[in-house]
Amino acid sequence: MNTNYDIVIVGGGPGGYVAAIRAAQLGLSVAVVEKAELGGVCLNWGCIPSKSLIHHANEFLALKDMEAVGVRIDRSGFRYAAVQTKSRDAAKTLTSGVAGLLKKNKLSVFKATASISAPGRIALHGGEFDGKILSAKTIIVATGSRPMVVPGFEFDEQSVVSSSGLLAMTELPKSMTILGAGAIGCEFAYVMNAFGVKVTLVEMAAHILPSEDHEPAQVLEASFRRSGIDVRTGSRAASLKKTAAGVAVVVSANGKSETIVSDKVLAAFGRVPNTRDLGLEKLTVKIDDQGYIVTGDYGETSVKSIYAIGDITRSPQLAHVASKEGEIAVEHIAGHSPREPRVDPELVPSAVYCEPQLAGFGLREAHAVKEGIKFKKSVFPYRGAGKSVAVGRTEGLVKVLADPQTGELLGAHIVGADATELIHELLLAKHGELLAEDVQSMIHAHPTLSEAVMEAARGLDGRPIHA
Amino acid sequence: MNTNYDIVIVGGGPGGYVAAIRAAQLGLSVAVVEKAELGGVCLNWGCIPSKSLIHHANEFLALKDMEAVGVRIDRSGFRYAAVQTKSRDAAKTLTSGVAGLLKKNKLSVFKATASISAPGRIALHGGEFDGKILSAKTIIVATGSRPMVVPGFEFDEQSVVSSSGLLAMTELPKSMTILGAGAIGCEFAYVMNAFGVKVTLVEMAAHILPSEDHEPAQVLEASFRRSGIDVRTGSRAASLKKTAAGVAVVVSANGKSETIVSDKVLAAFGRVPNTRDLGLEKLTVKIDDQGYIVTGDYGETSVKSIYAIGDITRSPQLAHVASKEGEIAVEHIAGHSPREPRVDPELVPSAVYCEPQLAGFGLREAHAVKEGIKFKKSVFPYRGAGKSVAVGRTEGLVKVLADPQTGELLGAHIVGADATELIHELLLAKHGELLAEDVQSMIHAHPTLSEAVMEAARGLDGRPIHA
Repeated sequence: MNTNYDIVIVGGGPGGYVAAIRAAQLGLSVAVVEKAELGGVCLNWGCIPSKSLIHHANEFLALKDMEAVGVRIDRSGFRYAAVQTKSRDAAKTLTSGVAGLLKKNKLSVFKATASISAPGRIALHGGEFDGKILSAKTIIVATGSRPMVVPGFEFDEQSVVSSSGLLAMTELPKSMTILGAGAIGCEFAYVMNAFGVKVTLVEMAAHILPSEDHEPAQVLEASFRRSGIDVRTGSRAASLKKTAAGVAVVVSANGKSETIVSDKVLAAFGRVPNTRDLGLEKLTVKIDDQGYIVTGDYGETSVKSIYAIGDITRSPQLAHVASKEGEIAVEHIAGHSPREPRVDPELVPSAVYCEPQLAGFGLREAHAVKEGIKFKKSVFPYRGAGKSVAVGRTEGLVKVLADPQTGELLGAHIVGADATELIHELLLAKHGELLAEDVQSMIHAHPTLSEAVMEAARGLDGRPIHA
Repeated sequence: MNTNYDIVIVGGGPGGYVAAIRAAQLGLSVAVVEKAELGGVCLNWGCIPSKSLIHHANEFLALKDMEAVGVRIDRSGFRYAAVQTKSRDAAKTLTSGVAGLLKKNKLSVFKATASISAPGRIALHGGEFDGKILSAKTIIVATGSRPMVVPGFEFDEQSVVSSSGLLAMTELPKSMTILGAGAIGCEFAYVMNAFGVKVTLVEMAAHILPSEDHEPAQVLEASFRRSGIDVRTGSRAASLKKTAAGVAVVVSANGKSETIVSDKVLAAFGRVPNTRDLGLEKLTVKIDDQGYIVTGDYGETSVKSIYAIGDITRSPQLAHVASKEGEIAVEHIAGHSPREPRVDPELVPSAVYCEPQLAGFGLREAHAVKEGIKFKKSVFPYRGAGKSVAVGRTEGLVKVLADPQTGELLGAHIVGADATELIHELLLAKHGELLAEDVQSMIHAHPTLSEAVMEAARGLDGRPIHA
């Protein structure tokens, strides 16, 4: 087997495998080194299996609608293990799909741990390739991230679980305390609550999803509360203790402390980059004080011929950012000109898939106010779109922020059914440098939720029809 | 009460009521005359209640997923009447919403039949306003359409029903023959089949949804067949006879005839314009040989000061076209310059809401081939988007057609989950004169079905990642 490649990519997640395919399309010889499963955390222990759980949670909740029309439902035989199995099946289907894509593109895949002993030199460890050395003109580091371990809240993956541990869980606890109301915390809060687990969601910031625009996040928060989730914002998890009665978490808020006892704790404080044990330090690849690799345009690191993409860099820790960075890097390596030298964070959509869904990009209102950025805004409620009434999904809103002078779209935020799909119309408007006027004047199919997008855009000039 | 208006609009459907609100926004005094319910057929007996039925059909079918994870389902108590009631509730909610909007915009509404006795002069008939005369600087005719009656297939709304009759139906028949596989026929075929009715769908053309691109329509057709619908394309309904055993329809295909007997027949041959009894003929308003009012730019008819919008004109018979024509007309009347003098049919999305959904706009491949229009095409399957696997909705495809020289988007067609929402990203690309390259290069949130849109756009240049 060949050991010389144009590019060796360390990590087969959504950054690495997409980079590999794109590089093959551009005629480069490529190897991918992956120590676990192709597709990385995203496909195996993140985005994909969690979407399967959410889908089943949605259908479980929808049983109520069917009860209302006479269908008799007996939930006593419900097996969460079967739902979990389905989520594993989805992950496996996609992982083998990625393997098929890499094969089709004639890419070499090595199942091994990698260390970079010198620029252009990758040593493989473990398994059948142990001791093998690969050489490459260029190395792309795409090793991703792992759940952050906070002292005192270490994962045992039994009573204190990470997101991966939760996705591996085959039995529902009676109660769960979730620490951190980012996307991961919110999605699992929704799923667990839907299946009858008593959920307490603890967030240090004043709002759930603190990095999102607060207005749609508040809609989600209200929805969570209505559905029975005990949401504790402005609350810090001070300590954790395993007791006979369960896991006791001391939570402090407004100077007062309270102990919350539950069967399990999901610690979702964030994710940290996998920069350890790669040998990067010896190579003088610049790593910042929080362990992220410092990159310039095209993902170039401080060492020539070594690139880094995805969660190990300072860009937003999202699969779709990693994929785009992978494409930019290989296009640059192949001597092509990528459209942009790096991902523009203003054009990165965030997406949270619980119901109501939440998605957004660009300017957040609170940030604009704080920084004195001038904006005009428009908010249109879902209930103004006929489709939302027809399908009983009236909870939600579309919010758009625009430059008051030029009409340029500065940001958009949607909470509600299908928000994670609807956001793309507004994102394309910004990406393509169109104006709100273009979204306003376009005929939208009736009845769709996208009509709420049109109406929100119209509101920027004070003329929605259905408000 | 005032009887002099800048504009009197005859018909309070999605053409009329939207025109009225827009006119009020522009400072004009407006009255709407509506003989039945505000919102017209669309809100009351069309788009909206049918979406409610489809939503319940989706949830009814999803019960299978829940059975697979141990929930026990007893469908024996299912009451279709309760589903039908919910669809009526949705219609009522929206109708009263429209009434509220008209009130808020200080518009006069007259519940009456109207006739136009002279330009600027509208006579009201029936109810509390009988005999009243309104005067208007401008009249907009927006009286819509009704189901087409074909001799031999007349509606009795019991055994031979129109779409309105079907929406009023509170009990499921055992079997139903649906004549015409346009949007209405397909949506009801899906709903009835989902609830256990034995459905035969008869279509004269070679494909269901004959006005759509055939490739996605074939995906829907295959899905229909798999789900048990007896689809008969290339088949003409020759005659109908009510018998003791049910309604017998003689269907001929390839020179052979067959009799299909079912409890009910839905005749969905199309819709015809409501131009009768308005007095238009006497006013020399030009009407074509099929009863449509002939209009020029801005909806102007052959008689000065009389405009016509929506289904009574030759434009596509869709609610969103009527609304846009209403806006264009009143903006012109108010002395503003609408962005376009008339609706561009290339920018009108079609939408069919059964599952899988179907939506599209612009060039159809068969038309391009027939007319010798040069195009390049790309088709990306839903199963290549991780989200479709995670939520078990892999059926579908995104198809884009572009100019091989310029890359200009000529048309797009989607079949699959959420197609009616996803289409808007591609439609905005065309509306905003962006290129496929703009859709290709935009970061799409992962995992979403919109990624299939991105991949289809990429395929135009031969470089999707997940194919």
